[in-house]
Formats: sequence, C-alpha cells, structure tokens
Amino acid sequence: MVPHLITALSGPINELEQRILESMPAIERWFRLEWMEHTPPFYSSVDVRNAGFKLAPVDTSLFPRGWNHLTQDMLPLAVQAAMAAIEKICPEAKNLLVIPENHTRNTFYLSNIAQLQRIFHMAGLNVRVGSVDPDIKEPTRIDIPGGETLCLEPVVRSKYRLGLKDFDPCTILLNNDLSAGAPGILEDLHEQYLLPPLHAGWTVRRKSRHFQSYDEVAKRFGKMLGIDPWLINPMFNRCGELDHTSDEGLECLRTNVDALLGRIRKKYKEYGINEKPFVIVKADNAAEGAGIMTVRDVKDLDQPVPARRGRGKDASAPAAATGMREVIIQEGVLTNERMHEAVAEPVVYMMDRYVVGGFYRVHAERGVDENLNAPGASYVPLAFAESTRLPQPGQKPGASAPNRFYMYGVIGRLAMLAASYELEATDPEAEIYD
Amino acid sequence: MVPHLITALSGPINELEQRILESMPAIERWFRLEWMEHTPPFYSSVDVRNAGFKLAPVDTSLFPRGWNHLTQDMLPLAVQAAMAAIEKICPEAKNLLVIPENHTRNTFYLSNIAQLQRIFHMAGLNVRVGSVDPDIKEPTRIDIPGGETLCLEPVVRSKYRLGLKDFDPCTILLNNDLSAGAPGILEDLHEQYLLPPLHAGWTVRRKSRHFQSYDEVAKRFGKMLGIDPWLINPMFNRCGELDHTSDEGLECLRTNVDALLGRIRKKYKEYGINEKPFVIVKADNAAEGAGIMTVRDVKDLDQPVPARRGRGKDASAPAAATGMREVIIQEGVLTNERMHEAVAEPVVYMMDRYVVGGFYRVHAERGVDENLNAPGASYVPLAFAESTRLPQPGQKPGASAPNRFYMYGVIGRLAMLAASYELEATDPEAEIYD
Repeated sequence: MVPHLITALSGPINELEQRILESMPAIERWFRLEWMEHTPPFYSSVDVRNAGFKLAPVDTSLFPRGWNHLTQDMLPLAVQAAMAAIEKICPEAKNLLVIPENHTRNTFYLSNIAQLQRIFHMAGLNVRVGSVDPDIKEPTRIDIPGGETLCLEPVVRSKYRLGLKDFDPCTILLNNDLSAGAPGILEDLHEQYLLPPLHAGWTVRRKSRHFQSYDEVAKRFGKMLGIDPWLINPMFNRCGELDHTSDEGLECLRTNVDALLGRIRKKYKEYGINEKPFVIVKADNAAEGAGIMTVRDVKDLDQPVPARRGRGKDASAPAAATGMREVIIQEGVLTNERMHEAVAEPVVYMMDRYVVGGFYRVHAERGVDENLNAPGASYVPLAFAESTRLPQPGQKPGASAPNRFYMYGVIGRLAMLAASYELEATDPEAEIYD
Repeated sequence: MVPHLITALSGPINELEQRILESMPAIERWFRLEWMEHTPPFYSSVDVRNAGFKLAPVDTSLFPRGWNHLTQDMLPLAVQAAMAAIEKICPEAKNLLVIPENHTRNTFYLSNIAQLQRIFHMAGLNVRVGSVDPDIKEPTRIDIPGGETLCLEPVVRSKYRLGLKDFDPCTILLNNDLSAGAPGILEDLHEQYLLPPLHAGWTVRRKSRHFQSYDEVAKRFGKMLGIDPWLINPMFNRCGELDHTSDEGLECLRTNVDALLGRIRKKYKEYGINEKPFVIVKADNAAEGAGIMTVRDVKDLDQPVPARRGRGKDASAPAAATGMREVIIQEGVLTNERMHEAVAEPVVYMMDRYVVGGFYRVHAERGVDENLNAPGASYVPLAFAESTRLPQPGQKPGASAPNRFYMYGVIGRLAMLAASYELEATDPEAEIYD
C-alpha cells in the first residue's frame, strides 16, 4: 500500500498512470512475490520525475536524509514499518545506535537525525546517536530547529562491537553515506547488525550498477504490465575510471552523451514526443550534489566553465572540469510537477518494503530539465488526502478520487527493489554458486 | 508501536501508566519475542476499561466490527498492517472474499464491511463480499450511510473451495462470528485460507478460555514489569453447562458471584481502594450484547426480572432468567474515562500484531460499572495527537506529551496475545506432543 497523499498534479490521468492504477492488485502481488526472494534495503528514498509520458526514478538513496520533511501524520506509518523491519532483522533488539553524517553544524540535517531517533524510539527501542566525527570527543548537545536538542556522543569501539559509553547496541543504523570512505571503526563488526551494510556506501556503490539492476526490474515489471519498460526507465551510459582532464576522458564523455541523446531522440520520435532530449551527467559514485550537469547538446561539454557559470543558472561545471573520475550519463526526465509555479519533483520515502510518505522537492530557480537537489531547494510535505474512498464495485467511474501518489510509490518501490538486487550483486560476503 | 491518539483522560499519570510508559522498549521487545513463538489473530478488537488504579481488557473480539468508526487518518496504518498480514499468510493472494454477518438490514454494520473492503483493496487485493445468508440469492446492492453502495453476492461452494460466481478467492475473511453455529458451507475448505479459523467462532470459543489464557499472559507480563498482574487482569469464575432455571444453576451462580466479590474486596483492601466491588455476569459463549448484568451483591441475583427492568437503567435480565447455559462471572472494572460527561471506554483495533486505531464507546445512560456495548451506545473516533514529540535525552521531563493511548494499545495487545494462546490451545487440528 501507498499512503493516499495529495499530489500537485491535477490534470487528466495519462495512459501510464491509468494502467498502473488499474493493475494495483497485480502490482501488489508482484511486489509480495519479489520480497519473498529479495530483502528490501532497511530504508531508502527515491527521487521520481514525472514527465507525463514517462515516469522514472532518477536517484535512489540508501542513507535517506530529510525524514524531518515528512509530516507528523506520517510518523505512525514510518514507526509501524520500522517495527516490521526490526522484527525481521533483530527481534531481540533493545538498543539502536544511529550514526549520522559528520555535519554537526547543519542543524537541518540534525533535525533529520532527531526524526529518525523519534521513529525508532516509538518503535520501542532505546536510541542514541553516536558520531564518528573525530571532533566529537564528549557528549555534545546541539540545539536544532523546533526547540529540540540532539545529543551527539562519541562512539567507542571494542574488538567486535561499536557502542557508546554505557550503551551497547545490537543494531547500528547508518545515516552516513560513507562518501569519504568507510572508517575503519565500522569494519569487522561481527556481533552487531550494521544497516545498511558497508557496501551500500559510496566507496563501493555505483549509480550505474543501481540502474543496471533497475533495468532488469523495469523489464520484468514492464512485461507483467504489458508496457514498454522505457516508460518507467531512464536509459544511461557510463564512463568509468578515466582521467577527464585528458582528451581521452572528454572524448568518452562526448561519445556517450551523443549516443544517449540519439537513443532518446529515437524514443521521442517513436512516441511522437515534441520535447528536446537532454541528459544528466553526474558522478557515478557520490550522493547528489554539486557537479550535476544538464547537457542538451554534445557541444555543451566544450563550453568553458566560467561561461556556464556566467549564465547564473547552473552553478555546476562540466564533468570534465570537476575531476569526477567515474561518470554516469543518464537520460534526462522532465518533471511536469509544479508547486506554486516552481518546478517540483516527488521524493518517496520507504522503510523496509513500505512506502511511508513523501514530499516535493521544489526549486524556484531551476528548469524542468535540471537537477533540483541543489542549494535553494525547498521541501513541501504532502498531506494525506481527505478522502480515501476507492472505487467500489457498482460505483460510477470517477465517483472517488484515485490515489495519484500511488504510482510514485510504485516507482519508488521498483527502485528500492533494484537496490535490493544491486546490494545482493555487490555483497562481498555473498556465497557464490557456480 | 501504538498510534499516538488523543485520549479523553487528562489527569495526572498514575503509577501503572508511568510504569508502562517508562518500560516501552522492554515491552516492545517482549512482544516481538512473543510473536516469534505465537501467531497473532488476523484481526481483533479489545474493549479496555481504565479504573485509574487498574487497567484491563474486558472483551476480545476475533471478528471485529466497527472498523467504520476508525478515522480516515488511521486507514493507512490499517492498510499497511493488512499488507503485512497477507504477506505472511498468503503472499500469492489475488482475491479476498469477505463474509459478513447476515444482518443485511443493518446498514451501520455494512459500513463496517465496506471499510474492510476498502482496507484490503488498498492493500492490493480484489475484494468482494459473499453472504452466507440464504436470503441472498443474487447480487444485491445495498445503499449504506455516506452515499456508498455495498454489493452482497451469494457464495458458491464447490468440493474444496468457496467463492462467488466468476470469483475464486485464495483467502476468505470471516466477519461473521458464527454465533448461530458454523454453516456447513464453511467446513472442509482444504485449499483456501479461512481467517480467522472456524474454532475462533462462538460454537467453539469460550470467554473463560480466553481469560484463562489472559491470566497466563498477564502473569508473565506482570513479572517482566515487576507489577502485580491483578492490576491488568480481571479475575473471573465460571458456571458451565448448567440449567440455570433450576436451583442448582442459580446456586452455582450465587456461590461464584459471592466468591469473586470476596476476592475483589480483598484486593481493594490490599490497595486501599474505596470503591464498591462488582462483577459482570455474561454468557461464556456469545458476543457481547443482551443479557450482560452488573451484580454488586449476591442478592441482586434474586431480584425478579421486572423489578430490575423497572429501574429503567439496565435492560438486561439476571442470567438465571435468560437461559444462558454457560456463564462467566468477571471482575467488574470501573471506567474512569468520560466523553462529554458520558461514561466511555476505549476500544483498541488491531490488524495482525499492530495496533491500528481506536475509538471510545460512549453510553450516556450507563454507569461507570455497567456494560456500555448496548443499544444507545455511540462512538467517538480518536484523533492522532498533533504532537508526537517524545522525550529526547536531555530534555526536561514533561516537555513533551506522553502517548496516553500507548497503555491501551499495550493492554489490547496483551489480550490479542491471549487470543493467540487460546486459539493454539483450542485448535482441533493442532498436533499433540506428549
């Protein structure tokens, strides 16, 4: 199930949405059967872009932040899902240690940690926050927005376990995406559950590996639904392990961008779509952020950095100039969603296999073909729809509002399933059967 | 987790509540471990009475009705829990058949069925309603409050399966408590899941058996919490298989009522409680309803029926006169809850192991020591509390509101756990190990 949230979109239901809504029982059953074979990530969030003709995930976070942007109304769902997750992994759990990013000065980020602490406390655990930041040498209270205080404590490592002074957790929840590498302190924990596992961090993870798994998921889902998987799947190419300051690096990028733009053009032609194709160039092994670039033409890549910056619209530099070593070139998906005339994209939050909420990421200064996860973005929580009436047998069509958020929840879960495939494929401890 | 609902009670937190709130992580862990060993009933509702000094379940329904009294806000929780329940029992489920009571003229009851249909539809199933009422010979549309229509269809039985015309369900959900006996049409279904199982119906079930299991649960829970189990456990006696129109029958009742009143008096003395003890006499093998009687003194049993009726306050007759063949005599638990000055008691709704909501049953014409589940009762849905802030380490005590509904959810789940023990003990197909 997907909570019945109010979306900004109010136009007529397009064909893809119609198909997804009609197929709800088949879709839910399909997911149930998938989860019999695969383990969902402990928690995740997925950025979804809805172009009307196409609906696709563009980024899947396995260390989701922004839990504080969910409304209070959604907490019970998150808590219930957290209970289900804990019950499966470690029913005897008493204590949970949350490890945040080392952004101790970003109090908005710390509000996210306070929300996670609240969720897992309400799920019945003793929750404390342990920092791996070497600057945290003693328990440090930090005031966060809303009048709360968060206490960060230094972690204490013993041979096989990680904890705090007088606090021995059986489960450790990472909200630190390990972009800076996995600290040794997190390794070789043989008697504790580390969630998500270390190989979900950016030292191991690659976006292209995720979208390779998503490709497989989208094909199977598309087959089940009888639709072209492209309608839910952003195409991609990658350039790995190249020195992009060299001509060779730039050449790889150019070739791949050009090829992908060509493939998109072909698909647009097939569906009679009158939009300008574009691709997104971003680091293959880092969370969203700086360096994400919209490329509408291969010539964009040759533009010198200052000139692009001078447009005042996109502070990101061409990949070639940023020193990214591994790059994914992803089909750009327009977003049709607007909040107060600003471009918006839905972000779907999941705990275990359940969609527990979502919000819109809104950016007033960005275009429909640009990354919105950038400074200046704001967050608009989605409310539960007042009416959760569903079509009853015998009722007139249109007598009740469909759950428009449902399809975002389906796409979010497809990306989560892809993450599950991905983590299985990249698990260094997986047993290999020949 | 228990949803953070607003309760009417606003007085100071008593000792028992304080103990339960403080012990939340231990309690949740205890439940998690119990559910590793025992299967929760598919769904249930529990009437809880809070006397301030004592908090206890007084009735546990395994065919809960009244789902329509939960607010719309609670639906997502119910749906998520329904998904979890289905996933465990029958992940390949597509179609669900709901079998209601044969009250086709009680449209309030049918609103409950429409709500169940909605919940399971939102959980991703095709849901239809099949009546076992012989009067339903063809699909019958019935208008229900709120402008909806419910379609009741006649069930069709084949050798091993039950369904509707062109509808073959893999799971059958009973909302019919089988008070009138299990119809043969429900027996020997070897290829379908029947939930709850037939032996949860009143042909097999006995309240005294339930409270015997609850006794065991309360003792173990009390031990874990370090409290006298009496504080959460209503004592009881029973008179089984007796002809109450005979002197012998009445004598059994008198002896047991007297003995139980004596035991309550002793407990009240132990705790310094200045209240008048009372017991509730009710049928051991039927849903709540007529014939429930409050007895404050053994002499009440000798009062002729018309005299009692003449008090205009309690339409129920002494058990001796109602022809009840099996009787449970239960310690009466006062209710301290009030809604608009009327006496109220919380009812807790559960799906699988999760508390998904609750409401108050209110009866303006009943006293604090009387059964409220009687004609004239009304239902006040509980809303989610605005603030779900919980005490954070380092916050001042009292800086955030505790979840007062939490303790009702704990008691509800203890009764649900007792029902799980009870169903295991009474399962006719259970394997017996010596």
